Amino acid sequence: MTGTANSSFDLVTGNGSVPRRPLRVALFGFGTVGRSVAQILADRTELADRIQLTHVINRDVERKRVPWVADSVCWTDSLDEALATHPDVVVEVMGGVDHAYGVVTRALAQGASVVTANKMLLAAHGPELLQLAGQNGAQIRFEAAVGGGVPLIHGVREGLSGDALTGVAGILNGTCNYILSRMAETDESMSVVLADAQQLGYAEADPTADIDGLDAAAKLVVLAGIAFRRHVRLAEIPRRTIRTIGSADFRYARRLGCTIRQISQIHARGEGFHAFVGPVLVGETSSFGRNAHANNVVTIYGRYGGESAFSGAGAGGPATAVAVVSDLLALTQRSGPSLEEWSPATFCEPPAQPYYLRFVVHDRPGILATIATALAEQGVNLDAVLQEPGYPKDALPFVITVEPCEEAALRQALAEITALDWHAQEPLALPMLVGEHP
Amino acid sequence: MTGTANSSFDLVTGNGSVPRRPLRVALFGFGTVGRSVAQILADRTELADRIQLTHVINRDVERKRVPWVADSVCWTDSLDEALATHPDVVVEVMGGVDHAYGVVTRALAQGASVVTANKMLLAAHGPELLQLAGQNGAQIRFEAAVGGGVPLIHGVREGLSGDALTGVAGILNGTCNYILSRMAETDESMSVVLADAQQLGYAEADPTADIDGLDAAAKLVVLAGIAFRRHVRLAEIPRRTIRTIGSADFRYARRLGCTIRQISQIHARGEGFHAFVGPVLVGETSSFGRNAHANNVVTIYGRYGGESAFSGAGAGGPATAVAVVSDLLALTQRSGPSLEEWSPATFCEPPAQPYYLRFVVHDRPGILATIATALAEQGVNLDAVLQEPGYPKDALPFVITVEPCEEAALRQALAEITALDWHAQEPLALPMLVGEHP
Repeated sequence: MTGTANSSFDLVTGNGSVPRRPLRVALFGFGTVGRSVAQILADRTELADRIQLTHVINRDVERKRVPWVADSVCWTDSLDEALATHPDVVVEVMGGVDHAYGVVTRALAQGASVVTANKMLLAAHGPELLQLAGQNGAQIRFEAAVGGGVPLIHGVREGLSGDALTGVAGILNGTCNYILSRMAETDESMSVVLADAQQLGYAEADPTADIDGLDAAAKLVVLAGIAFRRHVRLAEIPRRTIRTIGSADFRYARRLGCTIRQISQIHARGEGFHAFVGPVLVGETSSFGRNAHANNVVTIYGRYGGESAFSGAGAGGPATAVAVVSDLLALTQRSGPSLEEWSPATFCEPPAQPYYLRFVVHDRPGILATIATALAEQGVNLDAVLQEPGYPKDALPFVITVEPCEEAALRQALAEITALDWHAQEPLALPMLVGEHP
Repeated sequence: MTGTANSSFDLVTGNGSVPRRPLRVALFGFGTVGRSVAQILADRTELADRIQLTHVINRDVERKRVPWVADSVCWTDSLDEALATHPDVVVEVMGGVDHAYGVVTRALAQGASVVTANKMLLAAHGPELLQLAGQNGAQIRFEAAVGGGVPLIHGVREGLSGDALTGVAGILNGTCNYILSRMAETDESMSVVLADAQQLGYAEADPTADIDGLDAAAKLVVLAGIAFRRHVRLAEIPRRTIRTIGSADFRYARRLGCTIRQISQIHARGEGFHAFVGPVLVGETSSFGRNAHANNVVTIYGRYGGESAFSGAGAGGPATAVAVVSDLLALTQRSGPSLEEWSPATFCEPPAQPYYLRFVVHDRPGILATIATALAEQGVNLDAVLQEPGYPKDALPFVITVEPCEEAALRQALAEITALDWHAQEPLALPMLVGEHP
C-alpha cells in the first residue's frame, strides 16, 4: 500500500485482500445508542470476523456492565487505557461537544478512525475533524448523526454523488414533528402536547434544543457538508421556534389545505446558499404534511435526478446503532484517509416565497386596511384573508397570506405593523412550502 | 498493494493515495441513458480529474455522434477496439441480456470493472458475474438497475448494512404505477389508460414485461441480492398481471379504504423467503397508496432499524445516469474486487394474509352461499361482502374480503369455486397489504 500514514489500516484494507483480522473497536459511551451497538454486534455473530469490540469506555463503567457482552471486552473508565491498545476505530456515542471533541481529536491524531453520532460536534468542528482525519490516514464517519436509521449520509454521499445537488429539505427533528402532528390532530395547545411529549419520552425535560431548532440546524450543517461539501456555520442558520404556533394556526392552515411542520432546508442559489429551520406551512398531502409521529423525512433535490426522498425512524437506540454498525462495516471495506473537505459556505437571500401571516389583535375598525397598506408599500401582494368565527374580540386571530415576496420586504412591512398598538400577540410569519419545491 | 489481480486499478486506488489519473471509462450504448451519462460528465467539469470518458461504443455509431462530447473521445462500433485500450471501467447501458452478457463478461475477464443499468442481465446472471468480477480483481456495480435515480443500492448495501434486514416491499415499476394510479383517479378502463400511457411514452409498444411483472421481478432479484446476499431465481418469483384489474376493483377498493398498486415484495421467513410481484390492495393513505405517477417507492424492513423508505424518479435518462455516475465515482474511491456473493435462496410459503376476492357472475340465487361454503371448508373466514349497485345482472361484480389465511387453502377453495358455471369472468384474488407490514 502506498501513502497510508497509519499501519493499523493495512490489516483491514478492502483493496483486494480479505481482511486478516477484524476491525478492533473501542466504544466510547454506553448509553442508549452505545448499548444498542454492543447488542447488534453480540447478536450478529456473522460480523465477528469483521468487527471486534475490544473496549467499552464510560464514566463509572461498572454500573454499566452487562453480561451479554463478550468476556474479551475490556470495560474501563479510561480513554487512555483504550487508546494505548491502538484500536482501529473509536465509536463516540457519548454526546456533548467539548469532552467528545477531546476524545475524537485524540483518536484521530493517533490514526484511529472515528464513528460518531454527534451532530453538535460535527456542526461545531466538522471541517477541522475531517482535515485531522485526512492528515492521519484515518476516517471520520457519521451516518448516525442525522436521521437515526435512515441511511441518508450513505445515500447522499455515495448514491447521489453523480448528481449536482441543489437542495435539501426535510423534517429532521422527531420531537417537533411529534408535537406539531399531535397538535394538528387534537387541536390541543402547545403546552399541553409538550408536557405530554415530555412524559412519554419524546421530548427532553429542557426541550429548547428541539423546539427552538438548534438540533435540526446542527443536522442541517452535517447534511450540507455531505450534499455540497460546504460548511455552513450553525450560528448563521436562521432559526425560528415552534413555540409560537397555536391551535388557531392549525385551523387556518387546514383552510389553506396545509398543516405546519418544523422544516429544515438549505438550497444552493448561484454561488451562495440560503437556509432555514423553523415552522413552515406545508401541503397537508405532501410528504412533509403526511409525516407523522417522530419520523424523519428528507427530500434531496438534484439537477439531473430531480427529487429523491428518504424516510424512517429518526432516532432511538437500535435505529441509530444500525447507522453506527453500517459505518463500521464501511470501514472494513474502505481503508485510507478521508479525502472529504467542507469549505466555507456563503449565505445569500432566499428567493421570493409566499408567506402565511397570523395576527392576534384587539379588534377595531381599520386594522386590515392598515396592514394591507403597509404590505402594499413594500410591494407585497395579498393573496387571501381568512377570519374564522368563534374567537373573542380582544384576542382575535386572523390570517393573511401573501404572494411570493422577498423576505426583506416582508420584514420591513412587518416591523411597521408590529409597532402598532392593537396587537394581542406578536404577529407570526411562516413561509409556505407549497407547489413546486424548492 | 496486495492481492489485486489487475494492475490498472493501482492507479485509481482510494487506499490513501490521491488518484494519479482519472478512471478511463468506455461507454457501451448511447441511447437515452448513455447520452445522459455523457451529458453529466460533460457538464460537471469538476469530475474531469476523476472520470475520463474514452470511448462511446454503439452499433452504427456515426448516427449517434454529438458535438458536445470531448474531441478526445473515440466513437466506435467495435467493443474490441475499446477493450484493447484496457479501460478501467465499461459502462453497459445497451440493454438486452445475451449481447450485454457477452460485453460484460469480456470486460470483467480482462479486469475492467463494469457499471450496468441492466436488471435483466443481473437477474439472469448476477451470481456468476459477481464471481467473475471477484476473480479478476474487478467490481460490478448497478445502482442504476433498480429505482433509477433513487439511491437504493448504496442506501441498502452500505447505509443499512448494520441492520439484519428482514424484507423489501415497494413499487418498482413506474409504468404499472402510472396506469393504476390513473385508473384510480379517472375510473377509466385498463385498455384506455394503457393506450394513453403508450402514447405518452410511459408504456412500451409491447407492455408485457411491465404489466405482467417481469420488469419488477428482475429488480426484486437485484434488491434481494443486495439486502440478503441471496440469489432468487427470477422464474420462481410468483407474478400476477395487472391486466385483470378493472374500474370496479377501484370502486370496491375505495369502499375498503384502499387502492391498488403493483407491489413487489420479498420477505425472509426462517431460513427461506417468500416473494410476490403483482397487484395488491394497499391502504389509500399508505406510502404505496399515495405514490403517484411513475414514481418508485421502496420500504426496507430491518430487525433493528424498523422501516426505512426511499422514493423518487424510478426511470428516465438523467435520473438513471445519475446512478451510473455515482457508481463511477464510487469506483474512483474503492478499488479492489467485489467480495460480494449471492448464494441461492430457497422459497417458502408466505404467512397468512387477508385477501380481496372479486367475482363477476351471471347472477342467480345461491352463489354467495356456495362461495362461503367452499371457503369455510378450507378454513377461510369471510371478513366482508360488498356489492355496489348499478351493475348488470349478467356480469355482476361483487367482492368478498377474507381474514388472514394461508395461500394454499385459498387457492384450493378458489379452484373449486372457479369450476362452477356462473362466472362471467375468472375470479380475482388480490393480497391486501394493510395494517402492519410485512
